[in-house]
Amino acid sequence: MHRSAFGALGREVRTKNISERVQRIVLSPIKEMSILADEVRQDTGATIVSFGQGIPYFDTPEYIKEGIRAALQERDTARYTLEPGITELRELVAKDLMARKGVENVKFSREVMISSGCQEAVMCALVTVVDEGDEVLLLSPSFASYSEQILQLGGVPVFVPLDEDRGWHLNKEALLEKVSPKTKAILFSHPSNPTGTVFAQEELRILADLAKEHDLVLITDETYDFLVYEGKTHVSPASFSDIRDRVILCGSFSKKYALTGYRVGYAFAEQGIMAHMLKVHDALAICAPAISQKAVITALRGDQKSVAEFVEKLTENRELMCKKLDELSGFFEYKKPQGAYYILAKYQKSGLGSAELAVKILQEAKVVTIPGVAFGPYGEGHLRFSFACSPEEIDEGFQRLRVWTETLGK
Amino acid sequence: MHRSAFGALGREVRTKNISERVQRIVLSPIKEMSILADEVRQDTGATIVSFGQGIPYFDTPEYIKEGIRAALQERDTARYTLEPGITELRELVAKDLMARKGVENVKFSREVMISSGCQEAVMCALVTVVDEGDEVLLLSPSFASYSEQILQLGGVPVFVPLDEDRGWHLNKEALLEKVSPKTKAILFSHPSNPTGTVFAQEELRILADLAKEHDLVLITDETYDFLVYEGKTHVSPASFSDIRDRVILCGSFSKKYALTGYRVGYAFAEQGIMAHMLKVHDALAICAPAISQKAVITALRGDQKSVAEFVEKLTENRELMCKKLDELSGFFEYKKPQGAYYILAKYQKSGLGSAELAVKILQEAKVVTIPGVAFGPYGEGHLRFSFACSPEEIDEGFQRLRVWTETLGK
Repeated sequence: MHRSAFGALGREVRTKNISERVQRIVLSPIKEMSILADEVRQDTGATIVSFGQGIPYFDTPEYIKEGIRAALQERDTARYTLEPGITELRELVAKDLMARKGVENVKFSREVMISSGCQEAVMCALVTVVDEGDEVLLLSPSFASYSEQILQLGGVPVFVPLDEDRGWHLNKEALLEKVSPKTKAILFSHPSNPTGTVFAQEELRILADLAKEHDLVLITDETYDFLVYEGKTHVSPASFSDIRDRVILCGSFSKKYALTGYRVGYAFAEQGIMAHMLKVHDALAICAPAISQKAVITALRGDQKSVAEFVEKLTENRELMCKKLDELSGFFEYKKPQGAYYILAKYQKSGLGSAELAVKILQEAKVVTIPGVAFGPYGEGHLRFSFACSPEEIDEGFQRLRVWTETLGK
Repeated sequence: MHRSAFGALGREVRTKNISERVQRIVLSPIKEMSILADEVRQDTGATIVSFGQGIPYFDTPEYIKEGIRAALQERDTARYTLEPGITELRELVAKDLMARKGVENVKFSREVMISSGCQEAVMCALVTVVDEGDEVLLLSPSFASYSEQILQLGGVPVFVPLDEDRGWHLNKEALLEKVSPKTKAILFSHPSNPTGTVFAQEELRILADLAKEHDLVLITDETYDFLVYEGKTHVSPASFSDIRDRVILCGSFSKKYALTGYRVGYAFAEQGIMAHMLKVHDALAICAPAISQKAVITALRGDQKSVAEFVEKLTENRELMCKKLDELSGFFEYKKPQGAYYILAKYQKSGLGSAELAVKILQEAKVVTIPGVAFGPYGEGHLRFSFACSPEEIDEGFQRLRVWTETLGK
């Protein structure tokens, strides 16, 4: 079993002068597939349909672009912002966390940082709690980069299987089994990328109680908090007052406002934790991009109509992709996601690992999917499909997949 | 002696749930001073003059802003770029490295990455070569963040003193003394921040030979490569063909094009090293901001007239600040910098550590300087002055410092 698509292709690696920590990690197959797709496109001239990296097909809303144009007139846009972020933006984020998520009494100047995307915020959180040999529980399948971030620190990612049969929800027994004296934190995305799970209040309570009992930090990645389906409610564990001081809440503006390219996110933590995270943020990034921070100031001040429109379109895409997958039920089966914009579909026994399969589908059908192994061992045997692309791309991609699966039997 | 300005102010820190690695690091005093200045400004209403964080006083050149406005019309500006950076930009950077620095045969698609600023590029380099307990030699006084980046990885920063009497140039004996079997790399900025040293070809040759002899990687931060004075020439060790495969060259567009707020830089390394660095880049940043990458594409394609203008202005500022420091020769002495836009001035015995002194000067004279201890133990007893601010600010700041030093004796 290959953990990476490049590995599946047998690419060589240098070991001389290279740290052991970095030899242990892989490039996220999410990014590998984008790079390979670009190579296939250049080599063959084919257009590629991508269900890979989760990028909304909409453009940045016009009112946000207006804000960016206005920012270009301001001298300080060219300059580093304060290291924790622009004060006004931290204040807006604090208000949003209180209003929308019910986090209590957020002190914007001590408990909020603006990061270079959610990825960097999670990294700051991990550096702050993980020493060499420490374990972090990952509700798994889990976002690809978490395990690489932990391994890079000399920490140990411990994969806790979610219950696929119950729609990838929490398996309390499996969770309790994996806690050890070396456990320092639990990290999960919620709604979950790649499974689409929206964890219920009771599940979050189990995690909260476990964190208290074992003195753990709960790190949440709430990038997709705005995107839940069928009347589900997103609850943030940061709103539980008894664990407010042991939650690190990481978030993003990338998906909500179609700003993935702008690299801007945030984190909230109790000020004692945040003071340490800010030291890491400095060493990794200095500050988040000023123009992106200003884009988000505009975004958060707007009427949020564009968000409602995005959710509506993505809800339609979800239905469309489920229908298309149903038509290929001989090859794929899946649980309908409750949030985010991914489907982690199990594929029929094909004798191939998911990395090999994803590369084969790219090469033969010119469709990008993400190998499930990217999300840890419990993701193996699956492919992740993003339905953030346009409906036309979903149509075209599944047309290609249908033709491709038909050739398989021959 | 306090390593940080916050420490000098006696701020409390949380230790519960916090990793040992992050307890060992500090927020760079460069950023602390900006934050403290903002607090003083808010508390007292005073205007603050900053010789602190090195931010050019010019605005981003208009032709680059035009490029940014045009980029807003393109759909892919909203989106993640390929993880290693936009292909066209990698190609431009490769060409620039060959033309301007004489690096041989740079393969843009395998040996160049676009980073979220030079800071992130250096971090990617360090993760790639440093394991727990490994040592990195820092030509010192050295840029503040290097030691925090190394400590964060469980590595050991080993400070190699430069020779202040000879204008902060290499002290070969001191260097040889510090090499050990645990040494993995030598990291330095060139021209040097904070000392302004432009290392001569022979000095670089000593470093190159040492790297070969002890199988080390040479990590250079060439952010200020365009900014040298009095006919000095900047030579990159990446142009030495015998060590091309053991150099990681990190650079930035921040200072050259007045883009500090845009967070975009680059790294070059032999492809075997680069493949590992890209895994780290993914885990830290996903990709550099798309809009900033496009800004740099425009910048590199331009006629570079703005760069010549910046250099001219900064050359004038250098003369002005040296003159002002000469007028305070009872309190400060310094070596005239050969490159970059900093002066690391030794202050008269005042009984204060540099962190305490910088805080005192901020509070009493409302002028930001950076405590020399930020740059390691060999920086103690000094303050760093940036002359990237406007000539008017240099006038005003030194007027305040003059008045302040006069009150000292009383």
